[in-house]
Amino acid sequence: MLVDIVGERNVLLGEEQAPFLTDWLGKYRGSALAVVRPGSVDEVSAVMALCAERDVPVVPQGGNTSLSGGATPDRTGEAVLLSLARMNRVRAVDTIGNTITVDSGVVLARVHEAASAADRFFPLSLGAEGSCTIGGNLAANAGGVAVLRYGTMRELTLGLEVVLSDGRVWDGLTALRKDNTGYALRDLFIGSEGTLGVITGAVLKLFPAPRARATAFVAVQDVDAALALLSTVRARCGDRLTAFEYMTGDTLALILKHVSGARLPLASLPPAAVLMELSDTDDEAALIGRLEDVLASTIESGLVLDGAIAQDGTQSKAFWRIREGVSEALVREGMAAKHDVSVPTAALSEFVALADAGVKAALPGVRPIVFGHLGDGNLHYNLLPPVGLDQGQWTAEMPALTRLVHDETRRQRGSISAEHGIGQLRVSEMGRCKSPIELDLMASIKALLDPRGRLNPGKLLPDTIARGAN
Amino acid sequence: MLVDIVGERNVLLGEEQAPFLTDWLGKYRGSALAVVRPGSVDEVSAVMALCAERDVPVVPQGGNTSLSGGATPDRTGEAVLLSLARMNRVRAVDTIGNTITVDSGVVLARVHEAASAADRFFPLSLGAEGSCTIGGNLAANAGGVAVLRYGTMRELTLGLEVVLSDGRVWDGLTALRKDNTGYALRDLFIGSEGTLGVITGAVLKLFPAPRARATAFVAVQDVDAALALLSTVRARCGDRLTAFEYMTGDTLALILKHVSGARLPLASLPPAAVLMELSDTDDEAALIGRLEDVLASTIESGLVLDGAIAQDGTQSKAFWRIREGVSEALVREGMAAKHDVSVPTAALSEFVALADAGVKAALPGVRPIVFGHLGDGNLHYNLLPPVGLDQGQWTAEMPALTRLVHDETRRQRGSISAEHGIGQLRVSEMGRCKSPIELDLMASIKALLDPRGRLNPGKLLPDTIARGAN
Repeated sequence: MLVDIVGERNVLLGEEQAPFLTDWLGKYRGSALAVVRPGSVDEVSAVMALCAERDVPVVPQGGNTSLSGGATPDRTGEAVLLSLARMNRVRAVDTIGNTITVDSGVVLARVHEAASAADRFFPLSLGAEGSCTIGGNLAANAGGVAVLRYGTMRELTLGLEVVLSDGRVWDGLTALRKDNTGYALRDLFIGSEGTLGVITGAVLKLFPAPRARATAFVAVQDVDAALALLSTVRARCGDRLTAFEYMTGDTLALILKHVSGARLPLASLPPAAVLMELSDTDDEAALIGRLEDVLASTIESGLVLDGAIAQDGTQSKAFWRIREGVSEALVREGMAAKHDVSVPTAALSEFVALADAGVKAALPGVRPIVFGHLGDGNLHYNLLPPVGLDQGQWTAEMPALTRLVHDETRRQRGSISAEHGIGQLRVSEMGRCKSPIELDLMASIKALLDPRGRLNPGKLLPDTIARGAN
Repeated sequence: MLVDIVGERNVLLGEEQAPFLTDWLGKYRGSALAVVRPGSVDEVSAVMALCAERDVPVVPQGGNTSLSGGATPDRTGEAVLLSLARMNRVRAVDTIGNTITVDSGVVLARVHEAASAADRFFPLSLGAEGSCTIGGNLAANAGGVAVLRYGTMRELTLGLEVVLSDGRVWDGLTALRKDNTGYALRDLFIGSEGTLGVITGAVLKLFPAPRARATAFVAVQDVDAALALLSTVRARCGDRLTAFEYMTGDTLALILKHVSGARLPLASLPPAAVLMELSDTDDEAALIGRLEDVLASTIESGLVLDGAIAQDGTQSKAFWRIREGVSEALVREGMAAKHDVSVPTAALSEFVALADAGVKAALPGVRPIVFGHLGDGNLHYNLLPPVGLDQGQWTAEMPALTRLVHDETRRQRGSISAEHGIGQLRVSEMGRCKSPIELDLMASIKALLDPRGRLNPGKLLPDTIARGAN
């Protein structure tokens, strides 16, 4: 019995389950046999073994902040929802090896705090950091605004502890920077969205704390200009460049309309803008001087149309307030068709031109709201309905528009999920967007580690494919 | 017939095979049915399909520079040796996306040249770079002296093209920095030592070319002092620190004895030394100034005993000549028992103390020659025989000493192959050093991608384990 493993108050039934059964955007609703909240690896292992014995599906959940419905169970009510939220310990901080070892249920912001307390820095940074857990970050291979310099969650991880579908515990919790002894089991679980095993612990990399920052908000003509600026800044500043965020003029207008306190540090609304940040171990004045030099020369050459450099932390926060206001602005304006694509950076400009032309031809008046992590080739390509379009008609139009955007992505050899994962949201597109050989390899791996297809069913791989290999 | 696929002159028989059948250290000798040299992905695919049909084993080989016998066939003569050396094209360089796309048979130094010609930088740097190929670097997940800053080959790779055991081609040749659409197939092949598929192409990351370098050679007391220095330098210089190489005094003495032109830039032979290098996008004078500051303060505090900073490129090369002379010095002194271990950096000091004590107790007079990439926790822990010991007796003593070193490594939760791979050299230690669950997972993955165990047999996984899952 589940209660024998985790105790009565950690098995939730009925109404108590509600917060776990809906994603935070309210887009997906499911039901569950029970919500189980283990407090240790041994308890997770026992729960998994019991579920294996009874052939019960398991849906792992961390902070429940997935943007793709990755942690919400289906409506059958057959699955156990396994919440890792009680496993929230920082197990160890090693300031010699620069590592932190944590339970997977620890919240990202807590890792930031623990790193900071040890005069170190953990770079993963994203909107949900106050709620999302390290386990969820690992399951989705989270990205965010610091990938350009530090990489995604995959690159930030050294070791993992994983409970397999049969309840066995794989202790891969090593703190090694280099280890070439066989196949990359760690990387198989990272980004697998809870479909291959349940991550219960991780060893993450820490970095020296940056002591100097310089932030600029600049106006540019278009994606091409932004890329040319990126190339210039990288050549002149190297790894000091830690963020390079792109927003179209339409995106800025939407933020200014909806987000209180958002103010543009430019003379007028530009065709597009870039928020960029440099950081270094010391000498903030030199860093700001460096940014001023780059800006002066790129304004002189006409690459940058206008720009402002934050003079202090308050101004820097005000710049970031604009970028971070995007999600709020989108929610307030209406329901967007969201796409999280990446393409090779050299193809970004063509991608935007063709996608814009395509969706506007398919639905005149549709409003692309485009922003993203340009240095990673990652654009959040969102579409708002034409002003005045009926909600029902918009819902009906969305799938075709999404296919169109994803087709353009594929044409550029891009990805239909750069950082948000497949979850439920994009699972139907997997069959269309991955090659048969990739789907075949993935289905075989799924069958190997989860032969009964019980782990997070309906996520990542279409059911027909996930079960086809059996 | 193989000749129908690759042409008569690309199927080598008899004496012509010799250079392919021995590893470059002359430690392993094998034989082969034929040496086949395909010139394209299609030819590799056809060869693999034919070998699958005939149930013939395949041993892939790049530059034949493995340090663990990973590319040398066994003595049965049953396998086809598949040389990728003719596939040596740089397919494309993208200076916007900062990527280079290459055939897997291209030599590493050629990638350095191509990057350099495009004013970019490819950081993988190791002794064999004039001969080793990108395919071999990927198969072994190569490390080298720049891992501290840039990561191993895994972190430097974006996309792969792989011919599977049945001849199917997986085109994963994407140039995406972010792609969260399913399981990490790429990472499964990287580091798999040719046992899961044949890598035929890759997309690699390029970086802005560093324009300033500063190199120092400093004396320290021991590993602990070197680690304290590392911590200080990282805090003050951040990512500017690109190399941090440790050598014991005994190692230095050996180099000075055997390597012509190696001269110590210190007043006397120290207990241990560190060669460190900073690099930056510009302003070499400022970078050297920074290194001088760090050195002055660490000499004052007693952490650094003595030190020299290279005043120009020639001096810098002379410093590196010392470090790079290690292999030559070892070969000239005699046959070393070689170990390529990594442990968490915080455990390095204890590891060295216990391993030294252990081997000296087991064989009085044995001479540890220890050096390595300290920032990665990676030590090349080599043992030379006691002076005057008979060669036969030394050979007989080696396996027990190796087990002893590996046991200490395991006690510290370390790795018995940090960067050189398992190959044939360490395959018998895999069963001892990996957990049963890891061996089971790896055997299952092997069985999935190579069900008949035909790909690079006898490497990485012990035969009993590789075939046990069938």
